[in-house]
Amino acid sequence: MSGDPEHPDRPERTAVAALADDFVAGLRDWLTIPSIGADPAHHGDVARSARWLADTLRADGWPDVRVWDSGPALPAVYACWPAADPDAPTVLVYGHHDVQPVDPVELWRHPPFEPALVGEELFGRGASDDKGQVAMHLLGVKAHLAATGASAPAVTIKLFVEGEEESGSPHITKLLDEHRDELACDLVVFSDTPLYSRDAPTVCTGQRGVYGAEVVFTGGGSDVHSGRAGGSVPNPATALARLVAALHDDEGRVRLRDFYADVVEPTERERADYAALPFDEAVWLANSGGAQVLAGEAGWSTLERVWVRPTAEVNGIFGGYTGPGLKTIVPASASVKLSFRLVPDQDPERIADALREFVAAHTPDGVRSEVIAAGDGAPPYAVDVSHPAVGAVRDALEAAFDQPVRYSRTGGSGPAALLHGWLGVPVVYLGATLPDDRIHAPNERVVVPLLLRGAEAAARLWRLLPERLR
Amino acid sequence: MSGDPEHPDRPERTAVAALADDFVAGLRDWLTIPSIGADPAHHGDVARSARWLADTLRADGWPDVRVWDSGPALPAVYACWPAADPDAPTVLVYGHHDVQPVDPVELWRHPPFEPALVGEELFGRGASDDKGQVAMHLLGVKAHLAATGASAPAVTIKLFVEGEEESGSPHITKLLDEHRDELACDLVVFSDTPLYSRDAPTVCTGQRGVYGAEVVFTGGGSDVHSGRAGGSVPNPATALARLVAALHDDEGRVRLRDFYADVVEPTERERADYAALPFDEAVWLANSGGAQVLAGEAGWSTLERVWVRPTAEVNGIFGGYTGPGLKTIVPASASVKLSFRLVPDQDPERIADALREFVAAHTPDGVRSEVIAAGDGAPPYAVDVSHPAVGAVRDALEAAFDQPVRYSRTGGSGPAALLHGWLGVPVVYLGATLPDDRIHAPNERVVVPLLLRGAEAAARLWRLLPERLR
Repeated sequence: MSGDPEHPDRPERTAVAALADDFVAGLRDWLTIPSIGADPAHHGDVARSARWLADTLRADGWPDVRVWDSGPALPAVYACWPAADPDAPTVLVYGHHDVQPVDPVELWRHPPFEPALVGEELFGRGASDDKGQVAMHLLGVKAHLAATGASAPAVTIKLFVEGEEESGSPHITKLLDEHRDELACDLVVFSDTPLYSRDAPTVCTGQRGVYGAEVVFTGGGSDVHSGRAGGSVPNPATALARLVAALHDDEGRVRLRDFYADVVEPTERERADYAALPFDEAVWLANSGGAQVLAGEAGWSTLERVWVRPTAEVNGIFGGYTGPGLKTIVPASASVKLSFRLVPDQDPERIADALREFVAAHTPDGVRSEVIAAGDGAPPYAVDVSHPAVGAVRDALEAAFDQPVRYSRTGGSGPAALLHGWLGVPVVYLGATLPDDRIHAPNERVVVPLLLRGAEAAARLWRLLPERLR
Repeated sequence: MSGDPEHPDRPERTAVAALADDFVAGLRDWLTIPSIGADPAHHGDVARSARWLADTLRADGWPDVRVWDSGPALPAVYACWPAADPDAPTVLVYGHHDVQPVDPVELWRHPPFEPALVGEELFGRGASDDKGQVAMHLLGVKAHLAATGASAPAVTIKLFVEGEEESGSPHITKLLDEHRDELACDLVVFSDTPLYSRDAPTVCTGQRGVYGAEVVFTGGGSDVHSGRAGGSVPNPATALARLVAALHDDEGRVRLRDFYADVVEPTERERADYAALPFDEAVWLANSGGAQVLAGEAGWSTLERVWVRPTAEVNGIFGGYTGPGLKTIVPASASVKLSFRLVPDQDPERIADALREFVAAHTPDGVRSEVIAAGDGAPPYAVDVSHPAVGAVRDALEAAFDQPVRYSRTGGSGPAALLHGWLGVPVVYLGATLPDDRIHAPNERVVVPLLLRGAEAAARLWRLLPERLR
């Protein structure tokens, strides 16, 4: 774990290697704090996690460190280390220190908050998502300073580590509004996405957005015995199934009106990069809950389906009697939870309108429908791959990983579009974790050497950016 | 409650009127016993209810009374009162003394096992389904003897009152097999169905059968995050919705192969009778769980849809995340509970085969399907309306109700087909309860004057049958 030997032409690597043991020790300490944001019983731990980070930053020499804990957002940490050159660009690093719940805890081989280092893997809740990548940046700044021999970074580095990402960042816009001046920057480096794989490091260039809603169909006011009325009145569960069945055509395309109207297709370069990535169908299926076959929209590869194509999924469906055996009723109501993954430039509000229209058109006579939005949704985001900062990240990663780095995206969602919208600057992604780190699941882990590579890439990026953003 | 004054030409009516107060007192006593067959905690009460009935029969003078309680069936009561004439026909009266559970008990205006007489209505669990109609027969036999002045009935009357009807009569075939000799008869009088309405008394001529099964669709072995895999693997909930949507065509016809092949259409006389019955759409909808509109198979009236047409209903559907808010998963599995109401001569086994075939044809690549039958189902039954016993019941009811009696059926299911099959004799229906007696629901009641009319009809029927069955 002590890293590679000295590399005279790679001063960041030498610095990272020297700091590696301390880095692991610090991350392990942080991972003992169960900062589960979704559980009010752990909100004190979220605050403790924020203080741990702030104390560590101060010990690292960051000149300006603050804990934003005035509520209602769970405590976030802000820090700033100004560049020596007042004209140097300002970069805002985004991450989060809240973690997912740990249930089912009995499936963990090591207790989730007793981090265990097994070979190259560090196990623990938050190791990959996202404390590991935040710690990676702390190491990156130290390595950058060591590599350059300077007492201040080559760019002004700001750190914004929120405490509510796993809850959907419900108060992030309030923080962005209240701290507009502190957060002002020229670029956001978003560190909450993975590499494509260990053998194929990539620079992520976008995340899908999401819009979710529950559709409730109600027939009568109460269940009715199907011997009495079955066949003579509408069955809302049947009607709901017909709505869900109509949601996709036989090519797997979503049938909401104008669903694809705003979709921006990936560039040829991006598609070529995706096609060049190693793709193991068996591994993909195994990592997809043990699915049996690939499926999806006709005309697109699996990676394209997940990264650059929008989707509609049933997340849950419920209605009537679901206990053991038979209960012959016509249910009073049935509901389905739907979520739509969105790509640039789809707008969650337009999708919400199209869904309401679709539901109205598929509500049969005698059934009342209701569409209950699960919040406002998250807009999709993708950065223009010709932006020089994207090239800088790619070059930094290629140097750190000693191999070509291709483009990728991620099918999940996050606040990148929000940061872009509020701060008015591009968002680039720098991540060094893996898709199979089991985030949100038992036995989350991070591969430590990848975090060290990521720290090296970050350290190099701070050196590259002043020239690239000139 | 003391009944009508004397009717010299209606000796059964006079006898019933004289016995009415004792009848109500006895039924109220029986209704205090919570013989809930579905609840093992009440199995002692089911036994107590059987003993109550046996003791009452003995007190009434029935010469042969037995409680069949050797298990596994919950205790059933058998009694026989031989006719004076050894060549007289033998009639087996079928009913049951187990009752439905009472939840939600807080909705009862009177405690379910503290029977309350309010005007003409007697409230209590089992008042209508089915203790009231069993008690009606006890009264009917007493009135028959009083009216004829004989010490034995004009037909040999056997009583078979089971204790598991509300549980689907799981051991009735064992009882029928073990007691084949005792139960031998020329005709079954089945008393567990209602009149059409108070103003339109009817003779029921059939019940629908039922076949139920759960269809389970499984994709992967576990739920998977829709940001990770959504759009790239099959969604079993979507697939299941497409199966359910395919179950009916746009005319409301069931699309299982040969579903209608064995359906026997009602006679012209039956259809004319159904059409002549008063039908109040608002009342029907109110009694159908508050449904908003009528619906169902094109080309048939509401009564026909429920009485003589087979149906497929979703009783429940379940899959994935159904808690509050949004959880963006592709569910590992989804399941639907389906039940099919069947009419003569549909065979539950053939329907089961057709369902399995339908499910196989609608299981997409990558989804595993399982069809879990909820038991063997119950076959449908309808009696040939030209059978002289049907005419005898109709005449008996017309005399008791002083008005024309039409044919009806019931959309529910019961063991009539089983009795017919095992005993090899026709089953006719004699009921005097109402569809809005709230059986299986809070505030079950029975209209006492209708039970008195029913007892009068039964008493008259025993007098008519020797001649009609000659």
